[in-house]
Amino acid sequence: MNFTEKLRKTQHTQNSLLCIGLDTDIKKIPKHLLKAENPQLEFNKIVIEATKDLVCAYKLNLAFYEEYGVKGWDTIEKTLELIPEGIITIADGKRGDIGNTAEKQASALLHKLNFTSATISPYMGFDAIEPFTASQQKGAFVLCVTSNSGAKDFQHLKISGKPLYEHVAIKSKKWNTNQNIGLVVGATRISELKKIRHIAPEMPFLIPGVGAQKGDLEQSVKYGCTNEGDLALINIGRSIIYVSMQRIFDNKVREAAEYYSHTINYYRKKYYSIV
Amino acid sequence: MNFTEKLRKTQHTQNSLLCIGLDTDIKKIPKHLLKAENPQLEFNKIVIEATKDLVCAYKLNLAFYEEYGVKGWDTIEKTLELIPEGIITIADGKRGDIGNTAEKQASALLHKLNFTSATISPYMGFDAIEPFTASQQKGAFVLCVTSNSGAKDFQHLKISGKPLYEHVAIKSKKWNTNQNIGLVVGATRISELKKIRHIAPEMPFLIPGVGAQKGDLEQSVKYGCTNEGDLALINIGRSIIYVSMQRIFDNKVREAAEYYSHTINYYRKKYYSIV
Repeated sequence: MNFTEKLRKTQHTQNSLLCIGLDTDIKKIPKHLLKAENPQLEFNKIVIEATKDLVCAYKLNLAFYEEYGVKGWDTIEKTLELIPEGIITIADGKRGDIGNTAEKQASALLHKLNFTSATISPYMGFDAIEPFTASQQKGAFVLCVTSNSGAKDFQHLKISGKPLYEHVAIKSKKWNTNQNIGLVVGATRISELKKIRHIAPEMPFLIPGVGAQKGDLEQSVKYGCTNEGDLALINIGRSIIYVSMQRIFDNKVREAAEYYSHTINYYRKKYYSIV
Repeated sequence: MNFTEKLRKTQHTQNSLLCIGLDTDIKKIPKHLLKAENPQLEFNKIVIEATKDLVCAYKLNLAFYEEYGVKGWDTIEKTLELIPEGIITIADGKRGDIGNTAEKQASALLHKLNFTSATISPYMGFDAIEPFTASQQKGAFVLCVTSNSGAKDFQHLKISGKPLYEHVAIKSKKWNTNQNIGLVVGATRISELKKIRHIAPEMPFLIPGVGAQKGDLEQSVKYGCTNEGDLALINIGRSIIYVSMQRIFDNKVREAAEYYSHTINYYRKKYYSIV
């Protein structure tokens, strides 16, 4: 089964487009966890346990773990072991390099760590992306329009009348012969999201920026899904995982995840003919 | 001392523009080392010991270590401990992300691991680069023109008559208020190198692609240096570290490093008024 089919299947089975961002910052987690041997892992365990039936994916922002060196890398490995088989995992590291190095990156993230997919920066072009797409069942999310202010520095520059991000979308679509390339499109960029979904009607879209970054959830669902009302991954991190600093916080995390998962499904029903 | 001054000082003290790429692939190292507890580290130790008076910098391609997970990350830490104080170290991971994540990346690479500098992909714009430049004495090498074939996919697209990579060079120069931003320009792209040195006459250039990738060494020195004949970092990896598969290989590695360091200085004398 290729990555796109696998994502679609997971979204249908779980009845969810929600991706939870495990960007675990120990400065923001309940204080009693700091006494644990590995506070990041302990926190992730509780969040995963509380939400695993409500999501289609978990995204790990690698830098939040790499900050702790060897220990952080170990936390990534152990966190992945806690995620049920069938749920999509995304190594969010914005990788991409010359061919022989990109092969090592893909090997590290998709095979050694066994993530289902990874995010890739397109600046170095096709050979930087190709090793991530060599296995059909593994996926690559190519940065297209990002949610940050710096997105305007280069992504919006016009080339032959079209902004750079459209060229990225068009080429990524062309390269998608294995049906395992997706695009990253920030929820803070709705008009761009609409255009890009038009360019690539059948590709998976990873949509960060709802919640703390104030992206629009309704519009993200309306314009981010395919005609079948799926293949958008709505990523929410801080607004779910940091909702409570109490000793017992799993119920609050679950409530927040339910709120987002249900609200997304409400909009899916509103705009697409899904039941 | 800011990063650019520090690099200049190291290049003068060491009388070398050579940067050795420690892209250590255990499939390519002498076989007897595979019996060591940590073959990558053992190999790096021998290469560093044999070359540390001939270089201004070592560049570690992070993916070659991340492939080994926790153990690889440990090898990065231990390799850095073997590099003498004063030699520039480059974390080659092509990072860059939204502000709060880029801060974690910079913290992981420049502070936790204590690299002097890191390579950054510009696609996400200024806030992806800024955290890497917050400490004046730490440096960020922004990808400008890369040495791979995929460079043509986006970097050469024209915006208002100028290719994207020129826009990257111009903006990076503008952002360089702390004198600690450099550019990555592949040695396989000499005409672009010449143009970019003209745009940014005083910025450090990291120049990979000589050796295995067949970039031109003489032209890289001629067009890659400032008017003072410095601030180019000529990176050579495979053509130095893999010259011998013999049990005793440090002498061969040293010979190769001497050859490149001396040849670079020969061209510096030919094209610049250095003694």
